[in-house]
Amino acid sequence: MTELSDLLSIPPLDRALEPALRQALDGKAKPVGALGRIEELALCLGLIQGVTRPVVARPVLLVFAGDHGLTRSGVAAYPAGVTVAMVDTLLAGRASANAFARVVGAEVRVIDAGVAADLSDRDGLIQAKVAPGTADASIEAAMTVEQAATALLSGARIAREAIADGADLIALGEMGIGNSASASLLMHRLAPAPLADCVGQGAGHSPEGMERKHAVLAQAATRSDATAPLDVLVQFGGFEIAMMAGALLAAARAGVPVVTDGFIGTAAALTAIRLAPSARDYCLFAHASAEAGHRRMLDSLAARPLLELDMRLGEGTGALLAVPLIQAACALLSEVAELKDVLEAAR
Amino acid sequence: MTELSDLLSIPPLDRALEPALRQALDGKAKPVGALGRIEELALCLGLIQGVTRPVVARPVLLVFAGDHGLTRSGVAAYPAGVTVAMVDTLLAGRASANAFARVVGAEVRVIDAGVAADLSDRDGLIQAKVAPGTADASIEAAMTVEQAATALLSGARIAREAIADGADLIALGEMGIGNSASASLLMHRLAPAPLADCVGQGAGHSPEGMERKHAVLAQAATRSDATAPLDVLVQFGGFEIAMMAGALLAAARAGVPVVTDGFIGTAAALTAIRLAPSARDYCLFAHASAEAGHRRMLDSLAARPLLELDMRLGEGTGALLAVPLIQAACALLSEVAELKDVLEAAR
Repeated sequence: MTELSDLLSIPPLDRALEPALRQALDGKAKPVGALGRIEELALCLGLIQGVTRPVVARPVLLVFAGDHGLTRSGVAAYPAGVTVAMVDTLLAGRASANAFARVVGAEVRVIDAGVAADLSDRDGLIQAKVAPGTADASIEAAMTVEQAATALLSGARIAREAIADGADLIALGEMGIGNSASASLLMHRLAPAPLADCVGQGAGHSPEGMERKHAVLAQAATRSDATAPLDVLVQFGGFEIAMMAGALLAAARAGVPVVTDGFIGTAAALTAIRLAPSARDYCLFAHASAEAGHRRMLDSLAARPLLELDMRLGEGTGALLAVPLIQAACALLSEVAELKDVLEAAR
Repeated sequence: MTELSDLLSIPPLDRALEPALRQALDGKAKPVGALGRIEELALCLGLIQGVTRPVVARPVLLVFAGDHGLTRSGVAAYPAGVTVAMVDTLLAGRASANAFARVVGAEVRVIDAGVAADLSDRDGLIQAKVAPGTADASIEAAMTVEQAATALLSGARIAREAIADGADLIALGEMGIGNSASASLLMHRLAPAPLADCVGQGAGHSPEGMERKHAVLAQAATRSDATAPLDVLVQFGGFEIAMMAGALLAAARAGVPVVTDGFIGTAAALTAIRLAPSARDYCLFAHASAEAGHRRMLDSLAARPLLELDMRLGEGTGALLAVPLIQAACALLSEVAELKDVLEAAR
């Protein structure tokens, strides 16, 4: 587990450049603070990249796909086979994430983290399957400790590869029928928060479906009293969620900003941050989802998302829509004139 | 004034395509409604363009600049000369709006609507000066009826030219020291709302500055009891605000969506919509500004902005940041697979 310990040792964010960044922002040709959250974002990006002129020119969305044993107990509104079909849709460039990625100029990479089907013949799919779906967390641990470590390290490797290819922003997305149920359990133990506050409708449910989801999750929560982050991931996690957490940790270690969005992505960020608290400072939170509980999970990370568009799709769609805001923040520092020059000209 | 009557005759939005658009959105490979406000936006764009696959490929930001006689009574924190300097910064591509426009792929056109300086030698500036600044609205009407009509018609012409050049989205921006004071008076009469609820800090003020701004605006409001939209514009408007209203009306008439953002842009939209209520359906509201009163003005138009980033700069910066959301909405309708195909593959 040396490799895992290494991954979890994230240096605290170096804030040495903060005064220079604040001075640069205050000196731009605009009233002080008039670009609000874009200025906060610029400060944040400058600190993460360790430069006064941060650049985000090659955003890469990593979409991790995995299946969940919990679906066998009926926590999801769609059949698990939809995970495969959506992986194929993503590979064909026809999912919402692909469409949004084209708009914002992001590359999309799709990863088989643990889909319950043989996808080894899929061109363009990054093969990293830990196992064909997790075990049913309502009756046993979702994964073994070895599987959790493998997933974290694979996610880290995939992020490092993207960074080696030039990615200067890692956006995290996911696809996995049943993964909002897994995310609810992670939130319950890691936020922490009462289970009832952590359960939403996911991709859609009838009232009976919601009742069943609550019952199955209560059964899972009763089965294990895990609270240590790695143990919680083992008991309740998903392979795609573990891999997102690993990708986030690797990006943070490399000083590359990471943007997450919805309920599942935030559960992955929560897991990563509970494993390595310094990772928090490398995270940008894109979107407050319409999923119940998301706001509270964000609060547990002191995160205030950039967007609130009532979305609850996943795939990293929210993270993608924040990319132009992130690039605008970079452009503010790099391209905008200084106020003193403008005022001089005005004399 | 026949030309003006023509401009004000906006056909009501044809909603015939609404069922087809809703069906298309519900049939996409995602849970029904899971893209929230992006889906609302897609519906809106489809109706405005009158197609089931709307396209926004050539967004153009029109930045109208003008000066305000009110500044002579001390309503602004910056000297009026800053308007010229910022026009030059915009023309040099070094203002925040230019930087953001490059991020989102929008063209920027800068218009002299009524700057109080001779800018006739500026390359790349669209020359449409009505007069070198408005009169001081605290002591007399800001402009004549003829000037208001000229400004509205010039704005309309400039929008039509952009559309003739291929613009499929008109974003509106402004630059004008003192124009938040003018916008406050327009809001007061056209929202309508008590004057005290309409006055914010604009580009920045000391407590004494705010006191002065309140007093000058109260004096202006006492001077004229105008409530008819054109008369309110004449009494309290600015040339850049009138031109933005004209541009909005022309775009609406041409079936081209218009995106506005902050306190001044919304005051221009309010003016246009009070002049021609059908114009409302062609407007997209980008950003809820940090300026006091903006939320209430938006409420008076039943507008719920897409973004809330604590910005209060102007120049159309908020409108620009909404462009990728608008394009994502288009891409959803044009590029995303249908759920039935995905579910079929999942069987």
